[in-house]
Amino acid sequence: MSQLQIRNIGQLFVGKGQVLTGQALAIDHGRVSYLGAEGGLTARGDVIDAGGGLVSPGLVDAHTHLVFAGDRADEFAQRCAGATYLEIAQKGGGILSTVRATQLASEKELVELALPRLAALLAQGVTTAEVKSGYGLTVDDELKMLRVIRRLQGLQPISLVPTLLALHAVPQGVDRSAWVRTVLTELLPRVAQDKLAVFCDVFVEQSAFTADEAREVLRAARALGLLPRLHVDQLTPGKGAELAAELSAVTADHLEHASDAGMRALGAAGTVAVLAPISTLYLRQRPFANGRKLRDAGVSVALCTNCNPGSAMTENVALAMGLACLECGLTPLEALEAFTGNAAHALRVQHAGHLRLGDPADVVIFKAKSPAHLVWHLGQSEVRAVLKAGKLVHGG
Amino acid sequence: MSQLQIRNIGQLFVGKGQVLTGQALAIDHGRVSYLGAEGGLTARGDVIDAGGGLVSPGLVDAHTHLVFAGDRADEFAQRCAGATYLEIAQKGGGILSTVRATQLASEKELVELALPRLAALLAQGVTTAEVKSGYGLTVDDELKMLRVIRRLQGLQPISLVPTLLALHAVPQGVDRSAWVRTVLTELLPRVAQDKLAVFCDVFVEQSAFTADEAREVLRAARALGLLPRLHVDQLTPGKGAELAAELSAVTADHLEHASDAGMRALGAAGTVAVLAPISTLYLRQRPFANGRKLRDAGVSVALCTNCNPGSAMTENVALAMGLACLECGLTPLEALEAFTGNAAHALRVQHAGHLRLGDPADVVIFKAKSPAHLVWHLGQSEVRAVLKAGKLVHGG
Repeated sequence: MSQLQIRNIGQLFVGKGQVLTGQALAIDHGRVSYLGAEGGLTARGDVIDAGGGLVSPGLVDAHTHLVFAGDRADEFAQRCAGATYLEIAQKGGGILSTVRATQLASEKELVELALPRLAALLAQGVTTAEVKSGYGLTVDDELKMLRVIRRLQGLQPISLVPTLLALHAVPQGVDRSAWVRTVLTELLPRVAQDKLAVFCDVFVEQSAFTADEAREVLRAARALGLLPRLHVDQLTPGKGAELAAELSAVTADHLEHASDAGMRALGAAGTVAVLAPISTLYLRQRPFANGRKLRDAGVSVALCTNCNPGSAMTENVALAMGLACLECGLTPLEALEAFTGNAAHALRVQHAGHLRLGDPADVVIFKAKSPAHLVWHLGQSEVRAVLKAGKLVHGG
Repeated sequence: MSQLQIRNIGQLFVGKGQVLTGQALAIDHGRVSYLGAEGGLTARGDVIDAGGGLVSPGLVDAHTHLVFAGDRADEFAQRCAGATYLEIAQKGGGILSTVRATQLASEKELVELALPRLAALLAQGVTTAEVKSGYGLTVDDELKMLRVIRRLQGLQPISLVPTLLALHAVPQGVDRSAWVRTVLTELLPRVAQDKLAVFCDVFVEQSAFTADEAREVLRAARALGLLPRLHVDQLTPGKGAELAAELSAVTADHLEHASDAGMRALGAAGTVAVLAPISTLYLRQRPFANGRKLRDAGVSVALCTNCNPGSAMTENVALAMGLACLECGLTPLEALEAFTGNAAHALRVQHAGHLRLGDPADVVIFKAKSPAHLVWHLGQSEVRAVLKAGKLVHGG
């Protein structure tokens, strides 16, 4: 169908905190062609009845690691019994077990494992998602992961934004500085040449990489056209927010232990904070990232599932939004904004995260009547239907 | 189909901590007719391929309030912004807003509102669930709620166990002791006469009813054939576990603030602890109930969603199991036992919560390979198919 109308919308969230009522949408050749009073619609095209529900831009998941092989179910059980993430990592479990499984898997296997995870995100209303490498940790396996993300783009409706995260963990049996050299001299140029990633990310943490290593790699990446982002201040306080601001990173992710000065620096630098509250719960850490304080410091706050096998094995966007309200101090509307406009800004995707005339019609129709109703029904998807570029891709 | 086989089972959880491998199930006229080596199966009947997944008894949700009208989305948002459950209750919000909406609703409306909630529980693998009154708070409206539960029994596959919770909140504008008298003299005899409830429950809390009121009502209820259960030690420590043990209550529910002595008393009394970790998260309370300590004190620990509009608006069994592991100290297998055998014991349902020859074949087939894989995939249903009394009622 090239023409479509959405009528009987309760609340219409168009972006930037704006919720309208009494509005209808029309879509022509995949783009928003009308946004205004229902009475002003012409009668052409098929009609979708929104049932008085909330309608929003397609959701954007700003941070995932959903391409991987193997599982970490045993490790989850160990952590519940008291083992910490760092203890498990130090015993060779954790990320490195996923790295071994991912290195052994073929591109085809990785594609098949990732497809149901993307389908689960789509069922939650996600139409754009970032996906990282970082379980390859050799030049060939990192390139393999990025090729898998490219193949996935053609096999399902979610738009994917690929990120090179070669500095995710120190590869087993490899000198850390040797791996940093390899990334700088071999991997980054090949990723840039084949345009396999939009972003370059580094996990800065006591158990991972240093601020100096992040500086060197992200500067080199930027010179090759890859935008910088960072995992910082997640497990321990490390002045990571300050580092992200210093490097003008597009995003600073996690931030559970960000300092007040770091938050102010992010605000001044225009770096988007990407919060992953599911991981805080999943790792039995406290505190949760302070989304309220970040917003009050002028920082744009986005949310993500952080879908990954070790610290957030879930595609449950509704749970992430609920936790952001319960534990990070966001209002329901701020949580929705954090999964739409702010997340699209985090990914530098211009035409997602809001609904404006001419935008590609990525749209979610919810059963819930308002953003508060979305999070009230904790951890349960309220999605009635999802459109990607004007095409019905989930529900109906 | 009167005959059915389930083959290619990975792990088969039959109850009491027992996980078997290499086993198959046959079902004849709705009951388990074979449980043993796959090679020993005769070839009769349709075959369900479990795909190497975990198979368990149908799940049992030991505590819900899923019959209600209205919603509490605004209140959720207020609590996220800092208001407490008690503050909201004291302003006439909270439970009393649900009571007003439920009093105004017809039986038919309440049935229609409850059906999607039961469908969501079924999709999570639930085949038996308790449902409470307690939003009526007049004789007629409490009876109406119990009649709704009875009607729901005929309209969907989950077996329902009804509980009278007339002492859920003090009705607005009514003297508390007058309401207790009315319950004792009018409501209880009518509920008993029409066999509208199996259990009688009381919410013992500073903001609700006293231990003495619970004693009087539960003793009267028992004399009329209704089994006692209690909401205790949820929001404040109140020696509620001790009270439940003293009254030989079948269950003591919540228990976030139970004392060590109270836990030992529950163990000695054989009272089942029913934990509701979703509510602890939802109400932004700490601590979570200590399931580990309760089990170590010899208490049988069950879990529930506590599905209700104020403190746990969710049917997400997977989330409850995950939180029980992350926050209450249960192992994945203990969490599964808490949603099967221990929950069935809590509801005094003899033929649910385990898989034995001759049992009604309430069965869940999971995509997950093991109990650990169930909780690893946090808050996402791993259910592939659900059978109720041998009939496929969800998935396939």
